[in-house]
Amino acid sequence: MAKIRPVGDRVVVKPAAKEEVTKSGLVIPDTAKEKPQEGTVIAVGNGRLLDNGERAGTEIKEGDRVLFAKYGGTEFKLDGDEYLVLKESDVLAIIG
Amino acid sequence: MAKIRPVGDRVVVKPAAKEEVTKSGLVIPDTAKEKPQEGTVIAVGNGRLLDNGERAGTEIKEGDRVLFAKYGGTEFKLDGDEYLVLKESDVLAIIG
Amino acid sequence: MAKIRPVGDRVVVKPAAKEEVTKSGLVIPDTAKEKPQEGTVIAVGNGRLLDNGERAGTEIKEGDRVLFAKYGGTEFKLDGDEYLVLKESDVLAIIG
Amino acid sequence: MAKIRPVGDRVVVKPAAKEEVTKSGLVIPDTAKEKPQEGTVIAVGNGRLLDNGERAGTEIKEGDRVLFAKYGGTEFKLDGDEYLVLKESDVLAIIG
Amino acid sequence: MAKIRPVGDRVVVKPAAKEEVTKSGLVIPDTAKEKPQEGTVIAVGNGRLLDNGERAGTEIKEGDRVLFAKYGGTEFKLDGDEYLVLKESDVLAIIG
Amino acid sequence: MAKIRPVGDRVVVKPAAKEEVTKSGLVIPDTAKEKPQEGTVIAVGNGRLLDNGERAGTEIKEGDRVLFAKYGGTEFKLDGDEYLVLKESDVLAIIG
Amino acid sequence: MAKIRPVGDRVVVKPAAKEEVTKSGLVIPDTAKEKPQEGTVIAVGNGRLLDNGERAGTEIKEGDRVLFAKYGGTEFKLDGDEYLVLKESDVLAIIG
Repeated sequence: MAKIRPVGDRVVVKPAAKEEVTKSGLVIPDTAKEKPQEGTVIAVGNGRLLDNGERAGTEIKEGDRVLFAKYGGTEFKLDGDEYLVLKESDVLAIIG
Repeated sequence: MAKIRPVGDRVVVKPAAKEEVTKSGLVIPDTAKEKPQEGTVIAVGNGRLLDNGERAGTEIKEGDRVLFAKYGGTEFKLDGDEYLVLKESDVLAIIG
Repeated sequence: MAKIRPVGDRVVVKPAAKEEVTKSGLVIPDTAKEKPQEGTVIAVGNGRLLDNGERAGTEIKEGDRVLFAKYGGTEFKLDGDEYLVLKESDVLAIIG
Repeated sequence: MAKIRPVGDRVVVKPAAKEEVTKSGLVIPDTAKEKPQEGTVIAVGNGRLLDNGERAGTEIKEGDRVLFAKYGGTEFKLDGDEYLVLKESDVLAIIG
Repeated sequence: MAKIRPVGDRVVVKPAAKEEVTKSGLVIPDTAKEKPQEGTVIAVGNGRLLDNGERAGTEIKEGDRVLFAKYGGTEFKLDGDEYLVLKESDVLAIIG
Repeated sequence: MAKIRPVGDRVVVKPAAKEEVTKSGLVIPDTAKEKPQEGTVIAVGNGRLLDNGERAGTEIKEGDRVLFAKYGGTEFKLDGDEYLVLKESDVLAIIG
Repeated sequence: MAKIRPVGDRVVVKPAAKEEVTKSGLVIPDTAKEKPQEGTVIAVGNGRLLDNGERAGTEIKEGDRVLFAKYGGTEFKLDGDEYLVLKESDVLAIIG
């Protein structure tokens, strides 16, 4: 999917389908205060703009399986599939 | 449209008409918490003022098709057309 | 009008009369959430104080026709005319 | 009045009496959201402490006639006269 | 558990079972305003991104027994066990 | 009073008794929004920690008669006398 | 007590018993808005992480008798004794 290039410190994530989540062994409890979500990174921005005008590198790369905070993300659909644009800082952990 | 020059880290965007959005394959769900919008960048400011007094470059350029957060933008009309002035940071992703 | 020198990153703006706005082709919809306003820059301050103690230059100059966010400005009258003192960052775009 | 030395980025201002305000030609409308006030600077502090430990210079000097935002200032009386201690950033403009 | 790599200044913690807590001699009163929790650090991120673009080192390492503020953490389950992703700054102290 | 050493950018102040305030000629109106108070500086901390790890010097010294914002200070009694611990930035001006 | 090592700019404090407080001559009024507390520093962290990646030194050391703001601290019990983990900035003054 070269169609979407996130700007700055943003990433595009494709949320995992319910069946995939079960397979990975990762379970997110319904009681979690700020419920995280599992997904795959589809595109990564150029990174956060530092005070010296340079861009910070990012730890996240295309194809990474991630646990992310849904809060703050923005949903959109492209060619029938659902995606989210998130801030890098909303990605909590890389799985696997 | 050379008539509007956005100041600092702002951009001017012309929101896409409904039919155009359908053609690009991008769909924004009505249920989205902070509903993004599609549009074309018409003008780009000189960039954010850094702490050292210089201007940061920008990743966005005139003519870019973008997905943006409507929240925070300011609407105005020029010669009968609708535009928005946005902060660069309200542009989520570049399409195409 | 040399009578008012704005301090720091402030500018003094004379709001455009209704008839002038119509002539420029710029229309601000009544439904706009944060309604911008059109006016002329009358005086510009020395610029924002940077962390290194210097003043940042400004993109706005006396005589500029501008679109500004009324929010945050302070109104006053001098010799019968109405003016606003604004932060530079409340000036959204330069027109023309 | 050498009796009060404001600390840091503060200034002491003596608010103008009603008659003086009329004479200067400056009128502040009763409908103004954050009503500014006119006065004379009586004393100026050493300036804001910068991140490098130095003091920033100030644009305001003793004797300046100023337009200031009353909000944030602290009132006191000395030898029967009323004064305000303000942050420099609450001084909007220098008059004359 | 190499399965989860926390991003940035985050750590993954496995909360201690009730019996373990008793053994360590550490007791957290029910009346505590912001009740802390005991646990073991399972994985540590690359550290906070500094303003100069480098990563800050961290004082916490895998295997550390820690007292942490539950507030702000995100719960998830992996292979039947419960974990939390926390900010390093939510780890209050290292025990032992 | 060498018994109390304030930490960082804090000072210890002994509030003036009512009679002393009258003598200095300084009067604080009951209608003042954030009512300031008069007192004497008893002890001064090492100063604010700067971003470069050094301590900023302070403009306030032991024995200074000051006007301070009571808001934010913490009251305590030592050997029967009342004192306040304040941030330096809560000291508005030095009197005399 | 080598059992607890506070992280970053935190300290561990043992609150003084009521009788001890009386002996030191320090009294905290019941009417105090943000009531401070007296105690002894048991352990000190490595200090605040500066923007350049180094740790700031601290003015507080083990064994110091301190006046601290209870607000923001976290209570826990170890081997039957009560302790608090605080930010260094919650320590107001060193006594004696």
